[in-house]
Amino acid sequence: MPLQHIVAVSQFTRLDLESIFAHADLMRTLPRTAKRLDGRILATLFYEPSTRTRLSFESAMQRLGGSVISTENAREFSSAIKGETVEDTIRIVNGYADAIVIRHHEQGAAERAAAVSGVPVLNAGDGPGEHPTQALLDLYTIRHELGRVDGLKVALVGDLKYGRTARSLALLLRETKNAEILFVNPPTAPMRNDVKLALSDAGVSYHDEPDLDAALAEVDVVYQTRIQKERFESAADFAAAKGAYVIDQASLDRMKSDAIIMHPLPRVDEIATEVDADPRAAYFRQAHNGVYIRMALLDLLINRGDASAAWA
Amino acid sequence: MPLQHIVAVSQFTRLDLESIFAHADLMRTLPRTAKRLDGRILATLFYEPSTRTRLSFESAMQRLGGSVISTENAREFSSAIKGETVEDTIRIVNGYADAIVIRHHEQGAAERAAAVSGVPVLNAGDGPGEHPTQALLDLYTIRHELGRVDGLKVALVGDLKYGRTARSLALLLRETKNAEILFVNPPTAPMRNDVKLALSDAGVSYHDEPDLDAALAEVDVVYQTRIQKERFESAADFAAAKGAYVIDQASLDRMKSDAIIMHPLPRVDEIATEVDADPRAAYFRQAHNGVYIRMALLDLLINRGDASAAWA
Amino acid sequence: MPLQHIVAVSQFTRLDLESIFAHADLMRTLPRTAKRLDGRILATLFYEPSTRTRLSFESAMQRLGGSVISTENAREFSSAIKGETVEDTIRIVNGYADAIVIRHHEQGAAERAAAVSGVPVLNAGDGPGEHPTQALLDLYTIRHELGRVDGLKVALVGDLKYGRTARSLALLLRETKNAEILFVNPPTAPMRNDVKLALSDAGVSYHDEPDLDAALAEVDVVYQTRIQKERFESAADFAAAKGAYVIDQASLDRMKSDAIIMHPLPRVDEIATEVDADPRAAYFRQAHNGVYIRMALLDLLINRGDASAAWA
Repeated sequence: MPLQHIVAVSQFTRLDLESIFAHADLMRTLPRTAKRLDGRILATLFYEPSTRTRLSFESAMQRLGGSVISTENAREFSSAIKGETVEDTIRIVNGYADAIVIRHHEQGAAERAAAVSGVPVLNAGDGPGEHPTQALLDLYTIRHELGRVDGLKVALVGDLKYGRTARSLALLLRETKNAEILFVNPPTAPMRNDVKLALSDAGVSYHDEPDLDAALAEVDVVYQTRIQKERFESAADFAAAKGAYVIDQASLDRMKSDAIIMHPLPRVDEIATEVDADPRAAYFRQAHNGVYIRMALLDLLINRGDASAAWA
Repeated sequence: MPLQHIVAVSQFTRLDLESIFAHADLMRTLPRTAKRLDGRILATLFYEPSTRTRLSFESAMQRLGGSVISTENAREFSSAIKGETVEDTIRIVNGYADAIVIRHHEQGAAERAAAVSGVPVLNAGDGPGEHPTQALLDLYTIRHELGRVDGLKVALVGDLKYGRTARSLALLLRETKNAEILFVNPPTAPMRNDVKLALSDAGVSYHDEPDLDAALAEVDVVYQTRIQKERFESAADFAAAKGAYVIDQASLDRMKSDAIIMHPLPRVDEIATEVDADPRAAYFRQAHNGVYIRMALLDLLINRGDASAAWA
Repeated sequence: MPLQHIVAVSQFTRLDLESIFAHADLMRTLPRTAKRLDGRILATLFYEPSTRTRLSFESAMQRLGGSVISTENAREFSSAIKGETVEDTIRIVNGYADAIVIRHHEQGAAERAAAVSGVPVLNAGDGPGEHPTQALLDLYTIRHELGRVDGLKVALVGDLKYGRTARSLALLLRETKNAEILFVNPPTAPMRNDVKLALSDAGVSYHDEPDLDAALAEVDVVYQTRIQKERFESAADFAAAKGAYVIDQASLDRMKSDAIIMHPLPRVDEIATEVDADPRAAYFRQAHNGVYIRMALLDLLINRGDASAAWA
C-alpha cells in the first residue's frame, strides 16, 4: 500500500525507506526548473513555533515548484474563544491546500488530522510523540555519508530519556540489519524500556556505555543530543553530566577516520565549534538533507501514482 | 462601472453577484497551469489574526499562479511608537503589490484604505463593520448547493445581534427575489432594527421564529452561528440559549430532504459532529467555496478589462 | 571584486553604486514574465519585526520570479532555551535558500552571518549599526528624481544623532562629487563627530543650519526624519523641537521648484499631509524605489557572473 500520510516512524518498512531514500537522492540533483509540484499548495500549520522545521518543509515545497500557505499561530484555530477541533481545522484546510504539514503540542494530533484528511498529512512533531521526518533524514544522512544503513554501530549520546530524536532513530534502526547501539547517557537520562524492549523484539543489539570516550573509538555514527538543565535535580548534577558528554577535538582524535558526528541541532556547547571543520562533522549536512527528504516525501505523497509527472 | 475595490456588501448589484458567481464557477475547474495572475503579487495586511480568512485568500492567489506577501503583525505599522496611518501604509504597499487584502480592528478602515489605493483593496473584515467576501461566499454556496438564489426560505440561527455574518447575509438577500427570512435567536440576541428596516425597504419578508424545530421544517437554508457566552447576563441564561439552538440528528430528521445547513465556522458544539456525514451538512463545502469566490474576485479586480488574460 | 554580501554602506565604491543604480533602472521595466530568479529561494530572517523592509525584500524576490521562506520570529533560533549562534543558524539556512536577508537587534550580526555564509547575505538592519539597502534606495531616489548624484545640496533634517538613515546617507554622499550637506537639527540631536570627520576626510562640505526655513530655500534635497520623544529631557523641549522641524505648505513655498522632499517613513506629523499632493513630495516614490534597489541587489548577487540569465 502506498504511503498516504507521514505520521509515525513505525509505519515505514525497509522497502519504504529504500524507496524514500532513493527518491531523496534524485531530489539532490533535481533541476530547479523541473517544478514537479507546479501549481500545488502546501499548508504548514504550526500550533507551536519550530522555525527550522517549518523553513525546511517550505524550502522543499518551493524547490519542487509548489507554493506555501503558512501559520505559526495555528493555536488561534483552537483558542479558548473559538474552540475548533483539529479535525475541523483539517477539513477546512483540505479546501485550501494539496498537502498539510502539522506541528502540534499534543501527542496524537497528527494521527487525528490524518484520519479526517483527504490530502496527505505530514507530522512535523506532535508534542512528546513523533517527529518522523527527522528520523528519516537522520537515517538518510547515515546512508548518504557512509553508503549503507546496515551493519552500523551507533552511539546515541546525551539525554536519551526525553530526547525524541534519539528514541526515534533507535526505533528506525530496527529496519536495518546487524545494527548495534550504544546508549551513552548520564545516569539520570537513560533510554527508556519501551524502546529497549522494541529493539530486543526486533533482534537489535544494544548496551549501555556510559563512558563517551570508550564509545567514540568503536562506532560508525556518534549521534549527539542536547542535555537539558530542567531534567536534573541540581545544578551540580547538570554541570557534571554536561561536562562529561562534550564532543571536542580530543573526541575527534579517538574516533575512527570514517565515522561521522550527527546532531539534530540546534547545538549549544555539547559539540565544540572546533569540531565543525572536521570532515566527519556531518550535522550541517544532516540539516540540509532534511530538505531532500521532505522534497521526496512531498513528491511521493502529492504526485503519487502520477508517473506522467515526469522528470524534466 | 466595474468593481474596483471590495469594501461592503451594499456595493453589489444583482448583476455584480451574477457575474462574480459565474466567475467563481469557472474558478472551480480552472487548471492549476492556467496561472492567470502569473507574476502578480497580493499583500495580505492583517491588523489582527484571522488565520482561516488569510489562508483562504492566499490559497486563492496562489491557485491563480500569483504570489503573496503577508503580515499578521500589521499593527506594527500603526504602533504607538511608529504611528503610521492606514492611508500611508496603503500608499507604501501600493509599491509592493498588485492588490491588498486588509483585515483591521476599526470599522471603516477598509474604506479609508480603498480611498487612497491605486491597486484593488479587499476588505477581509473591519471590526464590527463588514466582511463582504464572507457574505459573497455564503450566498454563492446557496446558489451552488440549491441551484438558485431566488425564492429562498432562510433561517438565520443563533446570535443575530452581534453576528456579523448573519447580518451581512440578510442584507445581501435583498438582491434576490422572494426571499423569506426567519430569525431564530435567543431573546437576548435579536436581529437589530437597522437590518430589519433595510429588509422592509427592499420588500424582503421576514419574521421572528424563536422555535428552532418549527423553523427547521420549512426552510431551504439553515444558517447556524455561534452563541457567545459574553453576550449573556448569567451562565444559566447562556446555557439555556445554547441548548435551545443546537443542530443535531433530531434536527436533520425535521429538515426537508433538499435543505442545507451552513455555518461560517469555526463551530463549537452548536452543530453536533453526528451531523457532519449528512449530505445536507454544507459548512465545510461552504468554507471551500471561499477559495473560489476569492479567486473570482482577485481575477476580476486584478485582470479587469484584460480579455487577453485568456483561459488556458 | 564583485559584491558577494551587502553588509555596510562603506563597502560601495562609486562604480558599485553606478552599477547597482543602472541595474535598478532596468528592474523598473522588467516584465513580470522575465523570472530571472525562477526556482530560487530567498530566506528572510527577522530577529525583530520590520514589516515594511521585509515586505519590500519579499516583493522584490517575487517580482524576479523567485520565492520566499520567512520568519519574523528568528529570535526563537537563539532563544535562551535553544541558544543557537547566528553562525549556526546561517549555516543551516544555507541548505534552505539561495540568499538570506537578515535583520538583527545586535550590531555586527550581519557581518558575522556573512562571514560563514556560502550564499549571499543582505543586511536589513543590525541594531544601531547599518541598514545599507535603505541608504542605497535613498541615493537612488535622488538620482532617479533629479537625474544626478553629483553637485547635490542636501538638508538632513530632524534627529541626526540617533537617526540611522540620515547618518548612512551622509556617509554614502562621500562617493558623490561636490556634495554640500546642511545639518538641520534640534540642539539636542546633532550629527555626531564620527560622521563629520568622515565627511571632512572625504572632502565633503557641510555646515550646521538650525533654521529649517533658511535651509529649505537653497537645497536640492530635503531629507526629513522623525524626532523621537525619548531623546528629549522634557516634554517641552520635545514639543519645541518637533514644532520647529515640520514640513508643511509654507515649507513648500520656500523650496526650489525642482527640489524634492524625502523621508525614510513612517512619518508621523513631521510632514503635514497637505504636502503629499505636491510633485516634490518624493517619499512614497522613495519607498517604492526600495523594491527596485532590492531587485537589483538580489539579481546581481544571486545571478552573478551568469550572463545567460538573459533578459526576456
